[in-house]
Amino acid sequence: MTWGLDNLPYGVFSRHEGETPRVGVRYGEHVMDLAGALHDEVFATGSLNAFMARGASAWRDTRAVIRNKLSTDPAAVAPHLIPLEHITLHLPIEVADYVDFYCSIEHASNLGKMFRPDEEPLKPNWRHLPVGYHGRAGTVVVSGTPIVRPSGQRGAGVFGPSARLDIEAELGFVVGTPTALGTRAGRFEDHVFGVTLVNDWSARDIQAWEYVPLGPFLGKSFATSISPWITPLAALSEARVPGREQVPEPLDYLRRREPWGLEVTLEVTLNGEVISRPPYRDMYWTPDQMLAHMTVNGASLRTGDLYASGTVSGAEPGRCGSLIELTWNGAEPLKLPDGSARTFLEDGDTVTITASAPGPGGTVISLGEVSGTVVPAR
Amino acid sequence: MTWGLDNLPYGVFSRHEGETPRVGVRYGEHVMDLAGALHDEVFATGSLNAFMARGASAWRDTRAVIRNKLSTDPAAVAPHLIPLEHITLHLPIEVADYVDFYCSIEHASNLGKMFRPDEEPLKPNWRHLPVGYHGRAGTVVVSGTPIVRPSGQRGAGVFGPSARLDIEAELGFVVGTPTALGTRAGRFEDHVFGVTLVNDWSARDIQAWEYVPLGPFLGKSFATSISPWITPLAALSEARVPGREQVPEPLDYLRRREPWGLEVTLEVTLNGEVISRPPYRDMYWTPDQMLAHMTVNGASLRTGDLYASGTVSGAEPGRCGSLIELTWNGAEPLKLPDGSARTFLEDGDTVTITASAPGPGGTVISLGEVSGTVVPAR
Repeated sequence: MTWGLDNLPYGVFSRHEGETPRVGVRYGEHVMDLAGALHDEVFATGSLNAFMARGASAWRDTRAVIRNKLSTDPAAVAPHLIPLEHITLHLPIEVADYVDFYCSIEHASNLGKMFRPDEEPLKPNWRHLPVGYHGRAGTVVVSGTPIVRPSGQRGAGVFGPSARLDIEAELGFVVGTPTALGTRAGRFEDHVFGVTLVNDWSARDIQAWEYVPLGPFLGKSFATSISPWITPLAALSEARVPGREQVPEPLDYLRRREPWGLEVTLEVTLNGEVISRPPYRDMYWTPDQMLAHMTVNGASLRTGDLYASGTVSGAEPGRCGSLIELTWNGAEPLKLPDGSARTFLEDGDTVTITASAPGPGGTVISLGEVSGTVVPAR
Repeated sequence: MTWGLDNLPYGVFSRHEGETPRVGVRYGEHVMDLAGALHDEVFATGSLNAFMARGASAWRDTRAVIRNKLSTDPAAVAPHLIPLEHITLHLPIEVADYVDFYCSIEHASNLGKMFRPDEEPLKPNWRHLPVGYHGRAGTVVVSGTPIVRPSGQRGAGVFGPSARLDIEAELGFVVGTPTALGTRAGRFEDHVFGVTLVNDWSARDIQAWEYVPLGPFLGKSFATSISPWITPLAALSEARVPGREQVPEPLDYLRRREPWGLEVTLEVTLNGEVISRPPYRDMYWTPDQMLAHMTVNGASLRTGDLYASGTVSGAEPGRCGSLIELTWNGAEPLKLPDGSARTFLEDGDTVTITASAPGPGGTVISLGEVSGTVVPAR
């Protein structure tokens, strides 16, 4: 089963209005209340951060205990299993810093071709380092949060609601173990607690006007949605693959020590219709490389740091993670079953991103979903 | 006196190792312990955030109470006044999101001339909106924190310690009152608690290689220093001036309702020698405009958000806030009294930025200082 003992993602839930949210793991169609089942108040603190701060060895031990309890002592666990329909899911982490990368060579090339048709699609630095920038941590929201269409400047003297509201389907990585200022991160698996799905909503018209020379700002900062379930790295052990070949070979600090490419396939639906299946395994830069790069200058990590892959786009048609690519900058609208067409998002549109990965013995690990509905500008 | 009743900046201090830091106001050469003097535990929480979250009316009331106690009942206050030499100052706020703007037309023009000599120095968007981007909140550090020289990529296949380590002298604005996602901020003075000094350390060689197309990242994220004292807006009432004329007139959401230009003069010293006196009043975009812009897309504010002006540079020689400008990209080294010359910072260099503003009746309001010493790369 996709939500069985080999998955067990972590989330934060409450049973009724006013309750301090608690940490649980999803098991089937239930959530297991960890503060109750494990008698540990670290799980009654409103977010995963206090537990994540305990470090990788505590993550392993806790997972082993949970698996053991669920498989050997179901009667003792039963009182702590709550049906999903009785709970509300919350933002699972307190986000410290949020960084967004740009790791798909197809995505970066596609955007280069559209915006700079007379130049090489990739900038000279692109194959040498994972390009990234800081986003707004305070507007990371949990799946289900309505997305208010942003207003802003779309050109000189032009102001109004964005007319080119887009999605970016990404994987996000959640840091558990911090580092001290002036030092570099160690091994990926010692720092990164788990994986989440990310929709980095993007107002292309606002972004295009503002982003020179300091990068995206208001075109992205109005909302970034993440899935409520954080999949621990241990649940993705069968999904690990070597990263894609890199030419030129990266500098030593970016050299891959372990396979941290991931066989994760995303699926993007617009109002219930599948519009794309982005393949994460085709990403050029892997998450261990992003972590090494982000800290090579001595920048510290904090528990709750979130970094995302950038839009996941494959080479084949229908495998891109943004509408600007799927419609080639609006020139080739998507046709929807209700007879309408889309270039960019309309008010009322709902976008849902799901993802799955191979688990042990031919099973499937679900990474849950991140969903959001566009509501009109205020 | 510069640290008298008209100043009273807020800071966070401890008296001995292991004590939870407490909020105080500076008065002369003492700090007044507010938790003790006002019998309010909001000041015993390790940062200013809980107090700032109470909102502008609480800030006014608290300032009135403090001024009244200090001026009318010195005997009652005396036990709560601690000499500065007996305390350690800490980072005064928990930084939520950190945004850095680019508000000096001289600074933006100078950098444009250096880096894009064949183009118009200002990008087309510059006079229409305050250009900004998100920085790394987790590496904002208090004055006095050593600055480890960052290492990183300086070009294709080139790795090592930055050879072009620079400063950026800025003013920072600290948000107290939050907003909800999907709404815009109201009046500047209802949201912004106070002002701090900022040194946005910058590795120009790392930045130049990485910043296309998503903006500065590792060239800035290794450290940003702020002063330990947050000057409340009320202490700057005599410093308020109309902002500089803007052509073209900005869009309505950026229109200035009140004068929030500030007559604040910064002073930058390198190893004790004054190398520049940047004039904040000459900035093109004012802090109320930055706040309106940052939230026009519905991005929420959190208590502890910090946003900075960008490098403060005036038009006259010797009034720029960065070495890259003061030495014209290294072509005109600064001569120091010890006979040495500087283009960019060397290990062991100490940079200190101070600032002052006019107070009531010809007095001077000091904004304190932000200082840091460069230590060798690890």
